[in-house]
Amino acid sequence: MDKIERLPILRLTREGEQDTEDIVTRELPVTLILNDQEVVTLPASPSDLDYLAIGFLTSAGLIKGKDEIKKIAVDDQRGTVRVEAGAGDEGPPQPPTKTESQTKISAGEIFALIEEFQRFSQVYRATGGTHSAALGDAKSILLFSEDIGRLNAIDKIFGECILKDIPTSDRILITSGRISSATLLKAARRGIPILISVSAPTDLGVKLASQLGVTVIGFARGERMNIYSNGWRVETS
Amino acid sequence: MDKIERLPILRLTREGEQDTEDIVTRELPVTLILNDQEVVTLPASPSDLDYLAIGFLTSAGLIKGKDEIKKIAVDDQRGTVRVEAGAGDEGPPQPPTKTESQTKISAGEIFALIEEFQRFSQVYRATGGTHSAALGDAKSILLFSEDIGRLNAIDKIFGECILKDIPTSDRILITSGRISSATLLKAARRGIPILISVSAPTDLGVKLASQLGVTVIGFARGERMNIYSNGWRVETS
Repeated sequence: MDKIERLPILRLTREGEQDTEDIVTRELPVTLILNDQEVVTLPASPSDLDYLAIGFLTSAGLIKGKDEIKKIAVDDQRGTVRVEAGAGDEGPPQPPTKTESQTKISAGEIFALIEEFQRFSQVYRATGGTHSAALGDAKSILLFSEDIGRLNAIDKIFGECILKDIPTSDRILITSGRISSATLLKAARRGIPILISVSAPTDLGVKLASQLGVTVIGFARGERMNIYSNGWRVETS
Repeated sequence: MDKIERLPILRLTREGEQDTEDIVTRELPVTLILNDQEVVTLPASPSDLDYLAIGFLTSAGLIKGKDEIKKIAVDDQRGTVRVEAGAGDEGPPQPPTKTESQTKISAGEIFALIEEFQRFSQVYRATGGTHSAALGDAKSILLFSEDIGRLNAIDKIFGECILKDIPTSDRILITSGRISSATLLKAARRGIPILISVSAPTDLGVKLASQLGVTVIGFARGERMNIYSNGWRVETS
C-alpha cells in the first residue's frame, strides 16, 4: 500500500495562486488484534504493519518475545493486524531495568549519523508529514522506519528487531520526535543505551533516562547537540 | 505548576563544549477520572488541566455539554482531574455533521493570523518541545494553548470554549501539528469551518475535511500556504 498520495491543491503565495498537486502522507487507522481480542487502533502509515504490531504489543508487555508468536496476518485494506501468540511467560510486563552498556560514541560520529538519518527520511522530505526512527551503531544506520506517529516509527524498528533477531542492547536509537517518557521507556525496555533526537526532550524523559542509565541527546542538528543525561558515553575530544 | 524546568546540560558544537543549562518542557502524566471511573492517562503539559479534561471528555462523547458538569477537581501534583457529570442526554456520541458555515477569510488575513500565532508560542520558543493551538476569527486570535501533545492543545482550546460558553461554529482553529483524522474530527465536532496548520495534513484528514465541509489549509508559513479542501472560503484576490 502506498505511503503517499497525490491530492489537488491550490497553492497561494504573495505573488499569486496556482492549481497544482501536493504529495500527502497516507494515514490508515490500524487495529491490532491479539488472540481475537482488539487491543488498540493506531493512526499509522500503511507500511510494515507486522513490525508495528509486534513492536507495540511487546512494548506494552502483551508479548514477551518472538518465541510466543505463532502467526501474524496483516490486512492493509481493512487496516487490521491479527497476531496469534501463545501465553509463554505469564505475568505482568517487566519494568525496564537500568542499562549497564559501556557503548560509547564520539561527537563526530553523532553528527555523521544524524546526517545519514536525514538522508533516509524520504517520505518526510516529500510530504513534511511523518516522523522517522532508526537503529544504528556508532558507524552507521542499520534499520530505518517512517510513520505519521513518532512512537509508531519506534515500534516498527523494535518489531523488526524482534522478528529478525537483531540485538538492540548496545545500539543507538535515533528519533525525529521529542523524547517524552513514552519514548524513553520504549527504548529502555529494549536495552538501548544511547537515544538521540533531532528535537527536544521533556523533563520526565530526561529524569527517567538519568535513572535508567540512558544517554539522552537532543537537538542533534548540523553542528550542535545538547547532552541531557549520562554524558560519559559521548567522547567529546 | 510550571510548564518549564531548567536542567543542566553539556552543549557540544564543532567549536567545543560548554556546561550550561537548558529550558525543558515539563511532562505530567494526567489521569482523567469521570464519575469515579478512570478514562485515560494522557502525557500532558501541566497547565489548564480542567480545560484538557473537559475538551477530551467532550470530544470522546463522554460528556455532551456544560450543563452536565457538576464538579471538576484538578490535582496537578498527582496528575489527576476528577470530573463529576450527570447523565444528561444519554446515548452514543453524535458523529460530526457537515458544517454549513459561510465564514470566509482572505489570504492576507491568514498570513497575519499565523504571524500572531507564532508570536504567542512562548513555551515552544523557549523549549522547542510543545505544540500550540488557537481559536480565532479572521481578524485575530481569541484563545491560545500549548501542550506537549498536539491533540491535547486542541482539547484545551475546546474545553475552555465549553466552560466559558465561547462559540466555535464560525471560527478558525489553528494548530502547529499535522492535520490527521483525529485533528479534523475534533474540529468538526465543534463546528469549525476553517482549520489551518503550520505543518502537513494526512490524506485521511483531507478526505474527511472534504466530506464534512471543512476548509483545510496546510504549510501556512510566512508567505505561502496550500489549500487542500473547500477552498471557496479563502478569498484570494
